[in-house]
Amino acid sequence: MKIALLGAGRIGRVHARAITEHPTAQLACISDAYAPAAETLAAEYSVPVLSADDVFASQDIDAVLIASSTPTHSGFLERAVRAGKAVLCEKPIDLDLERTRECLAVLAEHPVTCALGFNRRHDPQFTALKQAVTEGRIGELEMIAITSRDPEPPPAEYIAASGGIFRDMSIHDLDMAAWLLGEPITEISVTGSCLVDPAIGEAGDLDSVLISLKSVSGKLASISNSRRACYGYDQRIEVFGSKGMLEARNETDTRLRFTGEQGVVEERPKWFFLERYAQAFGREVADFVSAWQDKRAPLAGAQDGLAALELAEAALISWREGRRVLLSEIR
Amino acid sequence: MKIALLGAGRIGRVHARAITEHPTAQLACISDAYAPAAETLAAEYSVPVLSADDVFASQDIDAVLIASSTPTHSGFLERAVRAGKAVLCEKPIDLDLERTRECLAVLAEHPVTCALGFNRRHDPQFTALKQAVTEGRIGELEMIAITSRDPEPPPAEYIAASGGIFRDMSIHDLDMAAWLLGEPITEISVTGSCLVDPAIGEAGDLDSVLISLKSVSGKLASISNSRRACYGYDQRIEVFGSKGMLEARNETDTRLRFTGEQGVVEERPKWFFLERYAQAFGREVADFVSAWQDKRAPLAGAQDGLAALELAEAALISWREGRRVLLSEIR
Amino acid sequence: MKIALLGAGRIGRVHARAITEHPTAQLACISDAYAPAAETLAAEYSVPVLSADDVFASQDIDAVLIASSTPTHSGFLERAVRAGKAVLCEKPIDLDLERTRECLAVLAEHPVTCALGFNRRHDPQFTALKQAVTEGRIGELEMIAITSRDPEPPPAEYIAASGGIFRDMSIHDLDMAAWLLGEPITEISVTGSCLVDPAIGEAGDLDSVLISLKSVSGKLASISNSRRACYGYDQRIEVFGSKGMLEARNETDTRLRFTGEQGVVEERPKWFFLERYAQAFGREVADFVSAWQDKRAPLAGAQDGLAALELAEAALISWREGRRVLLSEIR
Amino acid sequence: MKIALLGAGRIGRVHARAITEHPTAQLACISDAYAPAAETLAAEYSVPVLSADDVFASQDIDAVLIASSTPTHSGFLERAVRAGKAVLCEKPIDLDLERTRECLAVLAEHPVTCALGFNRRHDPQFTALKQAVTEGRIGELEMIAITSRDPEPPPAEYIAASGGIFRDMSIHDLDMAAWLLGEPITEISVTGSCLVDPAIGEAGDLDSVLISLKSVSGKLASISNSRRACYGYDQRIEVFGSKGMLEARNETDTRLRFTGEQGVVEERPKWFFLERYAQAFGREVADFVSAWQDKRAPLAGAQDGLAALELAEAALISWREGRRVLLSEIR
Repeated sequence: MKIALLGAGRIGRVHARAITEHPTAQLACISDAYAPAAETLAAEYSVPVLSADDVFASQDIDAVLIASSTPTHSGFLERAVRAGKAVLCEKPIDLDLERTRECLAVLAEHPVTCALGFNRRHDPQFTALKQAVTEGRIGELEMIAITSRDPEPPPAEYIAASGGIFRDMSIHDLDMAAWLLGEPITEISVTGSCLVDPAIGEAGDLDSVLISLKSVSGKLASISNSRRACYGYDQRIEVFGSKGMLEARNETDTRLRFTGEQGVVEERPKWFFLERYAQAFGREVADFVSAWQDKRAPLAGAQDGLAALELAEAALISWREGRRVLLSEIR
Repeated sequence: MKIALLGAGRIGRVHARAITEHPTAQLACISDAYAPAAETLAAEYSVPVLSADDVFASQDIDAVLIASSTPTHSGFLERAVRAGKAVLCEKPIDLDLERTRECLAVLAEHPVTCALGFNRRHDPQFTALKQAVTEGRIGELEMIAITSRDPEPPPAEYIAASGGIFRDMSIHDLDMAAWLLGEPITEISVTGSCLVDPAIGEAGDLDSVLISLKSVSGKLASISNSRRACYGYDQRIEVFGSKGMLEARNETDTRLRFTGEQGVVEERPKWFFLERYAQAFGREVADFVSAWQDKRAPLAGAQDGLAALELAEAALISWREGRRVLLSEIR
Repeated sequence: MKIALLGAGRIGRVHARAITEHPTAQLACISDAYAPAAETLAAEYSVPVLSADDVFASQDIDAVLIASSTPTHSGFLERAVRAGKAVLCEKPIDLDLERTRECLAVLAEHPVTCALGFNRRHDPQFTALKQAVTEGRIGELEMIAITSRDPEPPPAEYIAASGGIFRDMSIHDLDMAAWLLGEPITEISVTGSCLVDPAIGEAGDLDSVLISLKSVSGKLASISNSRRACYGYDQRIEVFGSKGMLEARNETDTRLRFTGEQGVVEERPKWFFLERYAQAFGREVADFVSAWQDKRAPLAGAQDGLAALELAEAALISWREGRRVLLSEIR
Repeated sequence: MKIALLGAGRIGRVHARAITEHPTAQLACISDAYAPAAETLAAEYSVPVLSADDVFASQDIDAVLIASSTPTHSGFLERAVRAGKAVLCEKPIDLDLERTRECLAVLAEHPVTCALGFNRRHDPQFTALKQAVTEGRIGELEMIAITSRDPEPPPAEYIAASGGIFRDMSIHDLDMAAWLLGEPITEISVTGSCLVDPAIGEAGDLDSVLISLKSVSGKLASISNSRRACYGYDQRIEVFGSKGMLEARNETDTRLRFTGEQGVVEERPKWFFLERYAQAFGREVADFVSAWQDKRAPLAGAQDGLAALELAEAALISWREGRRVLLSEIR
């Protein structure tokens, strides 16, 4: 599978490496509106730089990986789909719900393999958790608790363009909850606050939120988000059911443990997503390639992107209006 | 301090033992509407059986410990207070908010030492947690997560008289959240379900709930309750702040750990509150005695009972009306 | 059971409390060569002070608990036994092997309930470990690893009278190994050093030792001792067999866990034996009382004291002569 | 660096992959006395098959990685050294001490970069442990405890050619102890048994051993080995010093934890060395390449191989003669 990479920024570099390390995928070329970034990365991997137009026109390219800035996602996705190319698109497709639905409509007309970059679904630990739930290890699933905290708040200018905490940060957790629940979410309630950085509040956003979800059969899920955890990237999931509880715990670099006057000390969690989900990006590419080869749906697709965005939208309404929001109001 | 015990049932027996083991408190007598229970327990401790009337009339009794059935609490409390006796009352004062307020009014007119049986505040682990928060170990407190699950659902007849999950079960967690937050709670939102036992749903109650709280300065707290956890009494608290996170974890009988083909196996949590909070009851009596001696407020008093009941009431409204409830609507 | 306490020092106080808290045992009187100590403790428990002569002559005393200084143990034990009184004797019976054997001979002529103060056998965690081994949880027992470190070295004057690290400190671990192995130990090899306090080396003693044991069927046990661990009383046991491994881990006051910039921090182990084995002393008295009532052997008896002393003696020879010592050389 | 791989068996395959994944090293060719093995592996990596003679004669080859059968190591090593090629040799150089010394003499005459395959020194966790000790985290190092158990005993025919447990298995732990101690070991004492497989005993070997070591300044180290642990590859190290203790614990595939009726269950350790030390082999090649480039000593060299073999030899004497063996007897 020959893959063109659109976007040569931080996340583009991660994908470039993941493609290169895959046994059969091939990094065909790199494209970025900012030429120097494209050239630098292309030089590292000895691949050509192409314009986006040339990428979509090329007969030799099987797929595009969209890792460019958020506002360009939906346009690139539509062009790729219309050109018959498989797509692995970084989330979100778009911050706007209507625009996202348009993309899905285009995709429905031009069916290609379309994966969405919900990298956490590819994390080995969460994959094992999902599998254990599916296999009935905890009996009937009843409640999910997701704790998800970033190490540090993003700069104020990032916040402004981010779409807000629900669309930017919680969306990963909302997708995780949806995936683990395995059935439609019907209700959402939100409580939120600005505790970490007043600039976030001044921008009309929140930095600390509690989200409660209910699925069609009555299962419950809670999400606890904070934009800051001084000890690193806090990424924990607990699933609870009739036969027990299963926890995915934070990961550390080593398993060293020190015991001294101050107590028993283990390492703090890995610092941020590049360290914590290092394996997930490679597995994401692998899933994309094999989905394309086997003509099956990828682990996370465009529909999952829409569903998570709807949840984020509903969360925002719940927060603003101080009430339980039914997903039927949105869909 | 000579203490009369009202109520010779399961929880009465716990208190009888706690009083007896206290170095200076003295179990003066036992009273129970069901005479055989009173007589059996009185015989064990070689103390007399008295009627409630005689207890309140006795000049020789300093205090009453009210461990009788819930509907008798408020009446006994008022009579004790009017008789000038110190009171340690099992929670709740009453399931009804108005009736509870009447009791507090009587207490305001006849000020005596009045402690309420929120046993968890006396747990050594939670006490240490509270102290660490007060001392600033986690910096500025931002979020609290309380997980509280009973091992088994109560029988249907218990549910009917319990006042519902918020007033019966969540109330302990609501009090814990209020105590740890250390400032007024202003908002509450609830999501709930009946997943464990259909009989609970038929009785109009819930068995699985998520409660979100917000305090006056914007701190957040979440409570996750289930009426069943097959592995025992799941009692965990996590407090999170600007300088870190502190967790109170489940307790086990020993620290044994087995490693075999099936993995690394540690003991499951203690089974229920009598095992888990065994130490708390003795410390509760000790706090009561020393508060009386030093003429200071006990760790949990009647006002805390009212505050927790208000939160339970607000939770119920939030659940029924599907909205964020302001505590100002209730108070 | 009416028990006379011989010795009103630190360990005597522990036993006084354990006797008092036992439901049927009774602290009859206290005796100590140093009268003020006896009087102070006797006043606390409102019991009389007696001379040792009066204790042994009294018809009213069922048992003596010998908690006096080590050199007095064997004499008191013989007098008690000859007077037909049950004995709970702090370890060791005597630092001298021959003298210990004489005591056992007297005991053989005057059989009474005679328990030896190997308190660790009564620790709930170690009791559960022993039971799990007996029940086959780890299959066939193959290897034992005991780590046993004191928080701080004793003062130089204590070392001088202690009999050396093997007879004073390792003896507890040697008894634990013997008890867990459940069959005769046949060989011992020792490697040792003085790393903690030069004064210990100057006194001809060691402060850091490795002891290797082999039992009659070939099972192996290792003991690692140090006179200092800055983090507290390090008391761990690992048993390993054909079906797995079982570990008894250090105990802490609470289960609190902090996560911050410096990592994930749990409490250090309890500080020393009075904290770590607090429960063991009460259970030791309970076992003694019930052994006396049921006319059965106590969990640790005089024979176990002799066996452990033989191991300590063999350890000393192994250290001095740099060779594997067969227990048959000693017995 | 162009590396010829001698040996295309299990461990040869591991090294082939490690060389290939290195950014600058290059797998030049493969050689194996058993041609089909060489051809299969060579085909996988698209490299030529060469005879050993051609490897040593080639001007184009910078280094050889000796991963052939143990009896061929010393001969290949000498030929490589004489041909001026850098060498990374799987341990042992030879099972015979004299033969090993001869190789070191040849190496002294023809100095080249010569690394020995003590893979554990390259494990990220043990590297971090060593570094923490060097940086003084535990203060003055006093005692080391190494637990090292294989999941399953090797077949009887392997035992026969292995050189015995000390030279085959314990040698890794002896090297680890020597490396961590950082100073000469002067004494060794061994206690051993055959508990796992009678066939091992019939072959004159042991399967369960305790080794005690003492270094020149009096530091102590213990090694506990078993040829079987039903739960996997048990690889733990504890270092203890004046300021605390540091433990390297077993590693698992994920950090999942299940809590159910049977208790709290975590994953068992990784199964064997290929899983547990997967990262170490890549780092070993990296260290070899960079040592060659920078003309510095590799992390483990031929001298370390000799030192570990001397310890294994001394262990064997200690076991046979039942005494403490001084390393000065061997060296």
